[in-house]
Amino acid sequence: MRLSQFHLRTEKETPADAELVSHKLMLKAGMLRKLGAGIYTWSPLGLRVLRKVETVVREEMDAAGAIELLMPTIQPRELWEQTDRWQKFGPQLLKVKDRKEQEFCYAPTAEEVVTDFARGELASYKQLPVNFYQIQTKFRDEIRPRFGVMRSREFLMKDAYSFDIDEAGMAASYQAMHAAYTRIFTRLGLEFRAVQADSGAIGGDASQEFHVLAESGEDALVFSTGSDYAANVEAARAAAPAPRAAASETMRRVDTPTQKTCEDVAALLDIPMARTVKSVALFAGKTFVLALVRGDHAVNEIKLAKVAGLADYRMATEAEIAEYLGSTPGFLGPIGAAKAIRVIADPEVAALADFVVGANAAGFHIAGVNWGRDLPEPETVADIRDVVEGDRAEDGGTLKLVRGIEVGHVFQLGRKYAEAMDFKVLDANGKATVPFMGCYGVGVSRIVAAAIEQNHDANGIVWPTAMAPWQVAVCVINPKGEAHVAEAADALYRELRESGFDVALDDRGLRPGAMFADIELIGVPHRVVVSGRGLEAGTFEYRARSASESENLDRAALLARLRGCRFSEQ
Amino acid sequence: MRLSQFHLRTEKETPADAELVSHKLMLKAGMLRKLGAGIYTWSPLGLRVLRKVETVVREEMDAAGAIELLMPTIQPRELWEQTDRWQKFGPQLLKVKDRKEQEFCYAPTAEEVVTDFARGELASYKQLPVNFYQIQTKFRDEIRPRFGVMRSREFLMKDAYSFDIDEAGMAASYQAMHAAYTRIFTRLGLEFRAVQADSGAIGGDASQEFHVLAESGEDALVFSTGSDYAANVEAARAAAPAPRAAASETMRRVDTPTQKTCEDVAALLDIPMARTVKSVALFAGKTFVLALVRGDHAVNEIKLAKVAGLADYRMATEAEIAEYLGSTPGFLGPIGAAKAIRVIADPEVAALADFVVGANAAGFHIAGVNWGRDLPEPETVADIRDVVEGDRAEDGGTLKLVRGIEVGHVFQLGRKYAEAMDFKVLDANGKATVPFMGCYGVGVSRIVAAAIEQNHDANGIVWPTAMAPWQVAVCVINPKGEAHVAEAADALYRELRESGFDVALDDRGLRPGAMFADIELIGVPHRVVVSGRGLEAGTFEYRARSASESENLDRAALLARLRGCRFSEQ
Repeated sequence: MRLSQFHLRTEKETPADAELVSHKLMLKAGMLRKLGAGIYTWSPLGLRVLRKVETVVREEMDAAGAIELLMPTIQPRELWEQTDRWQKFGPQLLKVKDRKEQEFCYAPTAEEVVTDFARGELASYKQLPVNFYQIQTKFRDEIRPRFGVMRSREFLMKDAYSFDIDEAGMAASYQAMHAAYTRIFTRLGLEFRAVQADSGAIGGDASQEFHVLAESGEDALVFSTGSDYAANVEAARAAAPAPRAAASETMRRVDTPTQKTCEDVAALLDIPMARTVKSVALFAGKTFVLALVRGDHAVNEIKLAKVAGLADYRMATEAEIAEYLGSTPGFLGPIGAAKAIRVIADPEVAALADFVVGANAAGFHIAGVNWGRDLPEPETVADIRDVVEGDRAEDGGTLKLVRGIEVGHVFQLGRKYAEAMDFKVLDANGKATVPFMGCYGVGVSRIVAAAIEQNHDANGIVWPTAMAPWQVAVCVINPKGEAHVAEAADALYRELRESGFDVALDDRGLRPGAMFADIELIGVPHRVVVSGRGLEAGTFEYRARSASESENLDRAALLARLRGCRFSEQ
Repeated sequence: MRLSQFHLRTEKETPADAELVSHKLMLKAGMLRKLGAGIYTWSPLGLRVLRKVETVVREEMDAAGAIELLMPTIQPRELWEQTDRWQKFGPQLLKVKDRKEQEFCYAPTAEEVVTDFARGELASYKQLPVNFYQIQTKFRDEIRPRFGVMRSREFLMKDAYSFDIDEAGMAASYQAMHAAYTRIFTRLGLEFRAVQADSGAIGGDASQEFHVLAESGEDALVFSTGSDYAANVEAARAAAPAPRAAASETMRRVDTPTQKTCEDVAALLDIPMARTVKSVALFAGKTFVLALVRGDHAVNEIKLAKVAGLADYRMATEAEIAEYLGSTPGFLGPIGAAKAIRVIADPEVAALADFVVGANAAGFHIAGVNWGRDLPEPETVADIRDVVEGDRAEDGGTLKLVRGIEVGHVFQLGRKYAEAMDFKVLDANGKATVPFMGCYGVGVSRIVAAAIEQNHDANGIVWPTAMAPWQVAVCVINPKGEAHVAEAADALYRELRESGFDVALDDRGLRPGAMFADIELIGVPHRVVVSGRGLEAGTFEYRARSASESENLDRAALLARLRGCRFSEQ
């Protein structure tokens, strides 16, 4: 591409209204233009990158045997009613009425439509397994769209859906997609991890997320030093605690006039926070629940909701707390409740001896508390906390936390959707049976932003080669407009193209400083400068985007260097 | 592609509910599945064809210097208000409210958004000319979606928008797009014509439509035998008539008791229909208008609306006819009106002598009528009729009519949108000036249907090679499952692929009849049969989709034949 024939428009100033570095750099590089909240036009430069990602995703999906189709963005309400998701999906579902007052939604995902397609197309186990995918625009009406295409409302997603005759088949299809995703993110040159995940609103049996690692990531990821174990913090588990020690203190009421937090209580009593207990008051159904975690731990809402009876829990009101515990917040505890309550203890709390809880009386806590002696053993012991850095892992290792950006998600859905939509095929015995589904998403547009979060420096984006708008930029320095310089640049441009490189010839006639700043900002991995002085010496100036110094190389050495980089990057 | 790894599902029966042959064949071949009125899923087979079209369109747009970007499908009301199209576009515009009650539409076209993009990106004439395009899903809420993807609501369109500093630049950009479209439809192997068109609701100064010729086409196209002249019937013009002959009859009232049509009157009086005059009663503003065309001609509503004062005309009611003409329909004429009326005569009527009109009295006509003598010369003479086969063309040739399917449209928009959206750039003198726009659409998904309308036979689709899902099908006949037959087929499949052909290996194990029927139905241009018997003889059975006979060719002859076809098709 000759940049004089392209539309490149970078900004000198960094946009003030963007928070994330990827958003700032995409605007500064002119990759995006905002049309509305969470709605962006991809400029020619941005689209080049988006298409590179799309192509890698498509190639690996095809290589994994998935078959591409194209489903509509506008989908009828009736199908979404069949799975109860017309309501359940919530306000993220953009609903629309046509001129005949028929209701539709703009698809945020396509389980219903693909299952409807499949039930019309698949009649026998002989047609299975099959995995249909599409790369199609999606819309989710986010309450607070932000961070550019990191969390936009309209976005490009690859969504795939597998159909198998049995659970083992579903597991195999799932593994094939896991392997394909691993190849996709490897080819894209991204540092990533697959982690166990909660399957959330889409439901189903097993799921893993693929995250691009970046300090700015919204999600906390947990790894073990002892094995391959990795999980989203929502799903991560620590090892069971050591057995409870014997009681050594007597229970006593302590004055804590202004100490409403575990931290303050521990400081006052000069004990570790790990010996204090935080009591979180909830209401679930008609039951008042006290959830107990250690003072140095945090309740994990997703784990909490998985405890039997707590699927629809909510925080208790102050009035309910007063009624059931006879106390005000800050001094709550499981001892001496005014009415019957349910106590759920995290395993780390259940393993404590000589611990401190609120006294259910303003200004007081109770210290030296021991299970079985001062209060009954907890009715429910369940993992309800976030793991923390340094926790012991189930594999014997230690848990570490890093931050990531979710760019892919694989689910085993089981029979949920097929059952709801009455989709059956004949099995080998001629019996109608509900197939097993998996679904597999890649956030194509989000990958672009995530890659920048992971790969940038003070001068701009540092693209992995597979995603770069061009692999090589040939920059022409030719202030006198000399024919032989222009010709040499053009010849090099054509030669590199013929060698299979995706090349930009910067023939815009900019001053070197402005030209180099642009090429660095937009993150082209390899820069070659053609100048009259270089040509006299028989050399080109080469610099990798990630390098701090440039080198003067003759034509053969330059080509060898670029070919070598290409080889190592593939 | 090995068809055993693909999802192909053809129907034995022709769908009863489809009207057009393309719709029937697309459903029968399993290219489409209906999701709702005018909303379709493209199956893997259908998508292969759609992508082939998309690729040709993209390559030719790139070759013409247009630059691809990607605009959102969901667009804010505010922008559409700036050009007054939020209301004017009418109920085809699918409107939607988000969770914050903000209003958007699903883009049916993108003049507003691209102009908004351009005004943020383009500041100087130095950046012009530029032509931005996208290939993006569109939605038009058709009142009566029909014919499958021929007139669907959700569809894939390529839309391009050029920006020039002056009118001459716009004309050059327009010509470049005209040339690109000619290459696109030529490469796609379609018989097509570019015709002059009315620019309709999008407005602007000049426009041409590209039509795929097909008997089932919705549009009537007009050609001249005397030159390259071609136009949509809405825009087509015939030569001016010969000068009026002298009057030779006297005016007389004739009894036409039951003769309400020109045909009946001409038969009764034994004169040609071309000597009768049809009077069409209209109301425009506060004026009663009588539009006169020859009895053998039809009024063209679009031409009529272009006559000064008739932009918002409507048909007159019977009450208005009674009030202004004192008559009932069937006997209307320009002589003896009860109140003042405006008369608009088509040139062919203005050139008549001794003609017949209604008498404005039930049961009577007036014959031998002559302008200037029996009634005043017509106030307005304007081309208000459809041309007909055999009309004399302005170039001296004869007009011919054929039918076509509109698949492309190029417009010179002028400054309409840029002015409405206050988009200016600096010209060479540093003066802010409104640029000139063009817009250029290709109906990517409609092309697929149009190609089938033009290219099919009793056995199914006959794809032009460039659009075919595969160029070659290698069919394996191997009832005994012999290894050497499977291996030979596989080797041929690989060899053809390595030679650059897009090949399907039909290894599904179907009986020959079913396999051949599928391959014919889905329209693969070249079929090669590998069988044990053929291998013994050292031959493959080759048949072109368009041929009636097959031939036995050895490997070298087969490859030469396929290469020869490829050469001639490109």
